[in-house]
Amino acid sequence: MGRWEPDAAGRLREAALELYVAQGYEQTTVAEIAERAGVTARTFFRHFADKREVLFGGSEELQARMTAAVEAAPPEAGPLDAVAAALDAAAGMIGGDHQRSKRRQAVLMANPELRERELMKMARLGDTLATVLGRRGGIDDDDARLVAEAGIAAFRIGFERWVGGPRSADLAAVLEEAWGRLRGLVGDRP
Amino acid sequence: MGRWEPDAAGRLREAALELYVAQGYEQTTVAEIAERAGVTARTFFRHFADKREVLFGGSEELQARMTAAVEAAPPEAGPLDAVAAALDAAAGMIGGDHQRSKRRQAVLMANPELRERELMKMARLGDTLATVLGRRGGIDDDDARLVAEAGIAAFRIGFERWVGGPRSADLAAVLEEAWGRLRGLVGDRP
Repeated sequence: MGRWEPDAAGRLREAALELYVAQGYEQTTVAEIAERAGVTARTFFRHFADKREVLFGGSEELQARMTAAVEAAPPEAGPLDAVAAALDAAAGMIGGDHQRSKRRQAVLMANPELRERELMKMARLGDTLATVLGRRGGIDDDDARLVAEAGIAAFRIGFERWVGGPRSADLAAVLEEAWGRLRGLVGDRP
Repeated sequence: MGRWEPDAAGRLREAALELYVAQGYEQTTVAEIAERAGVTARTFFRHFADKREVLFGGSEELQARMTAAVEAAPPEAGPLDAVAAALDAAAGMIGGDHQRSKRRQAVLMANPELRERELMKMARLGDTLATVLGRRGGIDDDDARLVAEAGIAAFRIGFERWVGGPRSADLAAVLEEAWGRLRGLVGDRP
């Protein structure tokens, strides 16, 4: 990244989302995104592989942060608390920019192929969480998958609720509530 | 369907799965499937729109059966029991042919595009279950989604366990166990 473009990536992301929402993802070209951000197409490609990457570039980092949170949970924490820590880490990463998430969600919802890709990312995230939960020990592989998938369900539904709500809402609190509600709803209590 | 081909659809399905497993889904043509089943390609197309449909033709019926089971659950049954009824209905439909499910799963796992399509089907199934759970009343929309998604997680993980296990295992029992385990694992007990 050139020193004279301190936040080219951020401006490109912003420009891309604005264009995707305004005129549609398919109709938007990299040249248009670069122009709106005031940079060259070459600069775009220094930051993103293609226009889809603008939407999904954060997925790797999200997975890395959630995974790290599970791994950093104290050994005595159970899998449920480890999942709660992962949700909190996710909120720490994406909760600060409601508008960006809202725009991104609108673009995904308007395009079945992008929605499908998002589902794949979520499936992979669930698999990875299950793996790190299992690695902590004390839980067999199928159980780790069940807990991880439940956590992903809470993440997805909480996130969608947050994205559709007022920008003042706190994602961490919404995800925590979704996880707590899910646990309360399906919990096998006497 | 011609009267002289009493189970052409069944034979085509069988032939297709054998070929997909043996030589790969991409490499298999409709002509080969028809030949192996001892029918014409025209007969194939009377039963299936294309070779992908052989794998996904049952999804609509699965969704219909699970939905019907939720709707048929007695009004006093809670959402958890309604989900249990849906899982039981799914087992009633697909639990009788372990080999077919095992082959189908092997084909899906070998092909990212098919796996993606399966994820989409599962996502749609989750949405539909949430809708019918919500329609029963007594639960708000987000809660219905949380319960439905948890049910789908139990279905997927239980199903995969069953498919990878001995053919003598009873799918209904495996799904019931997965649902019970999930409830026990994430349950918010004091």
